[in-house]
Amino acid sequence: MRVRWALEEVGQPYAVRLVSFSAMKEPAHLGLHPFGQIPTYEEGDLVLFESGAIVFHIAEHHAGLLPDDADARARAIMWMFAALSTVEPAIVEYGTAAREERDKSWWEERRPVLQDRVRQRLDELSRRLADADWLDDTFSAGDLLMVTVLRRLEGSGLLEAYPDLCAYVARGEARPPYKRAFEDQLAVFSGAPPPKR
Amino acid sequence: MRVRWALEEVGQPYAVRLVSFSAMKEPAHLGLHPFGQIPTYEEGDLVLFESGAIVFHIAEHHAGLLPDDADARARAIMWMFAALSTVEPAIVEYGTAAREERDKSWWEERRPVLQDRVRQRLDELSRRLADADWLDDTFSAGDLLMVTVLRRLEGSGLLEAYPDLCAYVARGEARPPYKRAFEDQLAVFSGAPPPKR
Repeated sequence: MRVRWALEEVGQPYAVRLVSFSAMKEPAHLGLHPFGQIPTYEEGDLVLFESGAIVFHIAEHHAGLLPDDADARARAIMWMFAALSTVEPAIVEYGTAAREERDKSWWEERRPVLQDRVRQRLDELSRRLADADWLDDTFSAGDLLMVTVLRRLEGSGLLEAYPDLCAYVARGEARPPYKRAFEDQLAVFSGAPPPKR
Repeated sequence: MRVRWALEEVGQPYAVRLVSFSAMKEPAHLGLHPFGQIPTYEEGDLVLFESGAIVFHIAEHHAGLLPDDADARARAIMWMFAALSTVEPAIVEYGTAAREERDKSWWEERRPVLQDRVRQRLDELSRRLADADWLDDTFSAGDLLMVTVLRRLEGSGLLEAYPDLCAYVARGEARPPYKRAFEDQLAVFSGAPPPKR
């Protein structure tokens, strides 16, 4: 979704190649992505992995995801790193534990600790966002990544305590490029043909 | 250390302002860093947080940390994100648990799970590095961050099973800019005057 969304924001066409869970661990894919994950990105001879790096590459080469002003651009890149390095790890840690430790004797003791770590990041993010629409003046690749990071909390019930962050995510989801990316992504899983445009 | 090292690599002078643990949570610092961490970076009117973003800003404005070739540059940035988003979280999760859960009844069951997550990343990284000196052709900001991430394993005993990764870290530490940064950082904690140069 991150890469699709970024490409839709900058209006660049792309082709998708799906990778099965088993193929992800095979040598052909590991040649593209040493950590055996998705997404990867291919453009001519360039092969990239890491969604943050791919979104940055797209943002750097096409207008629409990074401001022109040098300081604002540096701050947008800062929010890209903040989304992936500071906010996402707490969310992933909680998500992984909720999947893998929910039947363990210690889960009732661990769960609030992990939830509090997520809430701490949400508190801090909410305080900084205040009543702004986006993390800096205009929508940027930093918002794109932050929105996708916060969307990982769907179903956890944690985001709902932050109406401002829910509204922030909703603003991202309301962008036409997001909607196009989401519909196309959904079509992959539903088996329906992607919407004609 | 990451920011010091980056500034030493590109030969830029800098001044350090220390922040106490309590000051980190006070409004003045939270105005610079909404997540109440260090480092922050100030240059004219620009205020940045997130070590990855600060290192990138330095790398983008001074020669020495990003290759000139466009594809090689994109790959160096990819390794920056990989270090912070894919390798570091497993290491931080293990480090935090080893500190906070070591007296818990479940620690003996959780420890090998967390260690295996770290080892998985180290396996994958080691396989990709193979017999190369650096992650791509030449030393870059990606290596700078990856070396500092791997150094977080010091004392855990986990890195020692990977002689190639130990040698990789040692190559980073042997760089004169790293040594200067390390000596200056050490002087802060030892209270000794920083070395004259």
